[in-house]
Amino acid sequence: MADGKMVEKLKKLATLIRYYILTMTTEAGSGHPSSSLSATELMASLLFSGIFRFDVDHPKASNNDRLIFSKGHASPLFYALWAAAGELTEKDLLTYRKFGSQLEGHPTVAFPFAEAATGSLGQGLSIGIGMALNAKYLDKLPYRTYVLLGDSEMAEGSQWEAIQLAAHYKLNNLIGVLDVNRLGQRGETMLGWDLNVYEKRISSFGWKTIAIDGHSIPEILAAYAEALLGTDQPTMLIAKTIKGKGVSFIENKNGWHGKALKQEECDRALKELGDVDKSVLGEISLPEDLKPKEGPPKGVPKKIDYPADKPVPTRKAYGNALARIFPQFPHLVSLDGEVSNSTYAEIFKEAYPDRFFEMYIAEQNMVGAALGLSRRGKIPFVSTFAAFFTRAFDQIRMSQYSDPNIKFVGSHAGVSIGEDGPSQMGLEDIAIFRAILNSVVLYPSDAVSTEKLVEEAAKHDGIVYIRTTRSETPILYRPDEPFKIGGSKVLRKSEGDIATVIGAGVTLYEALEAYESLKKEGILIRIVDLYSIKPVDETTLREAASATKSIITVEDHYPEGGIGEAVKSALATSAVPIYSLSVTKKPKSGKPQELLDYEEISRKSIVSKIRELI
Amino acid sequence: MADGKMVEKLKKLATLIRYYILTMTTEAGSGHPSSSLSATELMASLLFSGIFRFDVDHPKASNNDRLIFSKGHASPLFYALWAAAGELTEKDLLTYRKFGSQLEGHPTVAFPFAEAATGSLGQGLSIGIGMALNAKYLDKLPYRTYVLLGDSEMAEGSQWEAIQLAAHYKLNNLIGVLDVNRLGQRGETMLGWDLNVYEKRISSFGWKTIAIDGHSIPEILAAYAEALLGTDQPTMLIAKTIKGKGVSFIENKNGWHGKALKQEECDRALKELGDVDKSVLGEISLPEDLKPKEGPPKGVPKKIDYPADKPVPTRKAYGNALARIFPQFPHLVSLDGEVSNSTYAEIFKEAYPDRFFEMYIAEQNMVGAALGLSRRGKIPFVSTFAAFFTRAFDQIRMSQYSDPNIKFVGSHAGVSIGEDGPSQMGLEDIAIFRAILNSVVLYPSDAVSTEKLVEEAAKHDGIVYIRTTRSETPILYRPDEPFKIGGSKVLRKSEGDIATVIGAGVTLYEALEAYESLKKEGILIRIVDLYSIKPVDETTLREAASATKSIITVEDHYPEGGIGEAVKSALATSAVPIYSLSVTKKPKSGKPQELLDYEEISRKSIVSKIRELI
Repeated sequence: MADGKMVEKLKKLATLIRYYILTMTTEAGSGHPSSSLSATELMASLLFSGIFRFDVDHPKASNNDRLIFSKGHASPLFYALWAAAGELTEKDLLTYRKFGSQLEGHPTVAFPFAEAATGSLGQGLSIGIGMALNAKYLDKLPYRTYVLLGDSEMAEGSQWEAIQLAAHYKLNNLIGVLDVNRLGQRGETMLGWDLNVYEKRISSFGWKTIAIDGHSIPEILAAYAEALLGTDQPTMLIAKTIKGKGVSFIENKNGWHGKALKQEECDRALKELGDVDKSVLGEISLPEDLKPKEGPPKGVPKKIDYPADKPVPTRKAYGNALARIFPQFPHLVSLDGEVSNSTYAEIFKEAYPDRFFEMYIAEQNMVGAALGLSRRGKIPFVSTFAAFFTRAFDQIRMSQYSDPNIKFVGSHAGVSIGEDGPSQMGLEDIAIFRAILNSVVLYPSDAVSTEKLVEEAAKHDGIVYIRTTRSETPILYRPDEPFKIGGSKVLRKSEGDIATVIGAGVTLYEALEAYESLKKEGILIRIVDLYSIKPVDETTLREAASATKSIITVEDHYPEGGIGEAVKSALATSAVPIYSLSVTKKPKSGKPQELLDYEEISRKSIVSKIRELI
Repeated sequence: MADGKMVEKLKKLATLIRYYILTMTTEAGSGHPSSSLSATELMASLLFSGIFRFDVDHPKASNNDRLIFSKGHASPLFYALWAAAGELTEKDLLTYRKFGSQLEGHPTVAFPFAEAATGSLGQGLSIGIGMALNAKYLDKLPYRTYVLLGDSEMAEGSQWEAIQLAAHYKLNNLIGVLDVNRLGQRGETMLGWDLNVYEKRISSFGWKTIAIDGHSIPEILAAYAEALLGTDQPTMLIAKTIKGKGVSFIENKNGWHGKALKQEECDRALKELGDVDKSVLGEISLPEDLKPKEGPPKGVPKKIDYPADKPVPTRKAYGNALARIFPQFPHLVSLDGEVSNSTYAEIFKEAYPDRFFEMYIAEQNMVGAALGLSRRGKIPFVSTFAAFFTRAFDQIRMSQYSDPNIKFVGSHAGVSIGEDGPSQMGLEDIAIFRAILNSVVLYPSDAVSTEKLVEEAAKHDGIVYIRTTRSETPILYRPDEPFKIGGSKVLRKSEGDIATVIGAGVTLYEALEAYESLKKEGILIRIVDLYSIKPVDETTLREAASATKSIITVEDHYPEGGIGEAVKSALATSAVPIYSLSVTKKPKSGKPQELLDYEEISRKSIVSKIRELI
């Protein structure tokens, strides 16, 4: 247990950390000092007591314990901790929130000690799950993952997704630290200081819970020690704390969320802190030097082999591809939201059960966990119905600020899924994934291009979205046809093309059928397979724009943010008229072809549009 | 308690309902019979025992109990219930999942007895909360809201958001019926048949729980009776059931999710059912005929009054507007996600506390509840940071299939929020709201236009998104200036305009500053305030396209799906070149103006772009 000397030193460190929190936020003129002060003892006691093991010279090292501030607005505390550890100077802290500083308003990976960007609440625990899954099931390393949680954010459903899954996977290497300071942004939380209810809820989900006074260093140290005792459960420290602790005139007072102290208030507050010993250094223990479990030796994938005359759903080609390319990408893992028999992630699961994680119907946590895995060097492929990525769009959006390497694969795109109706139709998935900075959006039409593009996605370092189709589609390409991110294929082309029709997925086949009908009448059109929607192949589009009188885009997606607008953006300075066929009526149940006709995105509508333009 | 005759009749009805479930799905060739069969007794006992009160001739009547199938894939059961009640014929049922039928694959409001469209799991309870809040706090009617839940969907965090909030608001008029059939789509759920854990979890969140055998009609009837006993808690019936119940060869078997029986299998199954009495009619009790509590008498809003020389943040004008227009729209309610002091919904809350609901940091449930309120005739205005609507995009997406009347208001748009950094910046909000069918997207720049557009939003029946700005912006318009959905304002115009610059929000002011700089050099540009991004004012855009040589859009949003692409879509058949300035670098913390400059969406970049074009 804690000796008196350790407690004294931690108290000194806590005072120094409070000094940093107050001075840096007052200098910045904004920030969340009160939310930082409540968790000061909780975090100082973790980092500087020997519990936390971290090689400060190698923040990315495999054996380091991980620390995630899910309550990202407590960034002043986060940075102050690293200053107390000697990794930031007081001068560095005074750049907080200033343009160009690594010390952003909410932690981002611009700061090397941040495991991931946080600030949208209720996401840190999921990221921690990814890291804990990696430690326990993949790298097989003894590092632990600590997540600081706010009490307000416990209202987010994503927390309970994470809590249930952590228990399900017996993540005894995951420790949550819940800072129950009672006050949210605009008033009291639903549960206030009722630690008992937090304990009941969290323990009912299978966690070990330890309720403590979050300002008593001996209690905190004892709790961490207890958390590390052998068990197969994750542990939650539930700490009663005081928001603004240490500054009497803001302690436990409403109206002090997200508010820096004015200079004179800060001066008063610093007086209350008493002596600040700037010479005290927070020492962090080194972790053991262990090697992550090696994956299988790298191998060469089998060749792609689909009979040219047998239609295959691209979702199935996705599953095949994942299993096929694994030898080449031994860091690959697959996560699926309880629909692996629909997305065909099950093909990979059957081939490599140890690299597959069933994430159940909890898409938010699935995406957060994928980010955690990605931050630990894995290449997660995350699959569910295209429509259900809308459920996790905040996690997807946030992931972009952590330099992630995640592949999202959405099956059941568009009205072409048929009878299940609109709730299951991905009709805005292209829009959301295009709106992620530097994302790649791919939409293969046949099995061969799917296989090739899954491989390209695995090679690419960043966020990639792949849209797959429920129904079978004919093979278009030979197995040696090359595909690249940013490319496209011109499938029909002649000197006399009067228009270019651009499709992808089911609409590409509709365009090819339209081509055949029109050809019989002597009308020739160019057909482009726009399999890379972002980045888009501007060269081919510009050629088409200058060679043909008009461009028609056809997509099984709502008009906004989809293929039509991608093409319009690429050709915004070209004079060519662009016409877009897309889903514009409320979709219904029905047969796929009925729905394509109803939405006027089938061969018929393409033919009529071309006739109208002649 | 239940008499023997009642139980006998309910058994007969259950058999008839099973007959319908099997025949309609086999005829359709798809659907979820096994998930319907597990809940047959649960639902038949509710509807046809006198517990459920519903006027079948007036399905929208205020006093009706509400029934929501959160497990929307059990639609065959849902339709079969209404057939057993005499509201659908057997012939009607055979149109299930066919194009044009009201009986879609997952329930939609095309079917008049569906309270809302469901099918994306984990959303029905939130919708039910909206209806229960309405009953208890607004209409003050004794109707009850019943929600049928699947066990797989309990993995969704949104369920726990709903569960916590229902207890917080003491919704003793809300009854959940949890169909624990153990099997999800691809295998067992995390908890299988462990009813005890479900009870612990749900009761720890403040609900009354009743565990039962979900195929024992007497137990079910007793549980409903107990649920209705006076208490201030919502109640969850937790029912152990068998997936596929009644058909021996699919009962409790994996691999039978979402699969219709083939004709010969169906014949075998029907034999097992034994005698089906098609003459038995399920009688539903009528509700009392009570009047909803009247709101205040309709009044006339005060006049808009802002000093012309005093900048006001549009988010504050939003709060002012809501409070101002309430007399004109007494069905208006406000929901906020624990940020009412940032969105300024607090101004309305202070004026009309009974019409404001604090929804805490649980955006998914907030949106679902708004849909429930909307379906009961209220006009919910839902506010949070623009960025955090991404958290609820699945609920927003799904709401469009329920003919909703909901207004979403997102504050803290774009990089112009400054120091808080990217996690808090709404940079894809326009993209997501544009991608909703028939949505309206408004982006006022000053306080006056905000007031006017909030009023237009309240008048408009449908989904409206209003984007507001964190920082103060100068007043541009006189209080009598008219604004309409689909309009725009040309703020600077001359014969000699060499280009048109289109902005909204902060970028409009940047454009106006650019205008002043360029004017000094004798360069004239046209400036358009594109306050209505969807629908967009095509007439004004076309005029600008023909009058000026080029168009420049400037927006504090990512390029995809935003103002630039809205304009490009409107002018896709025009030859005018369109240049777009938008957020294209990973945003950081910093001062608003620093960030606008960094992202090249400020006056400087507008001026350079214009110079480049000369």
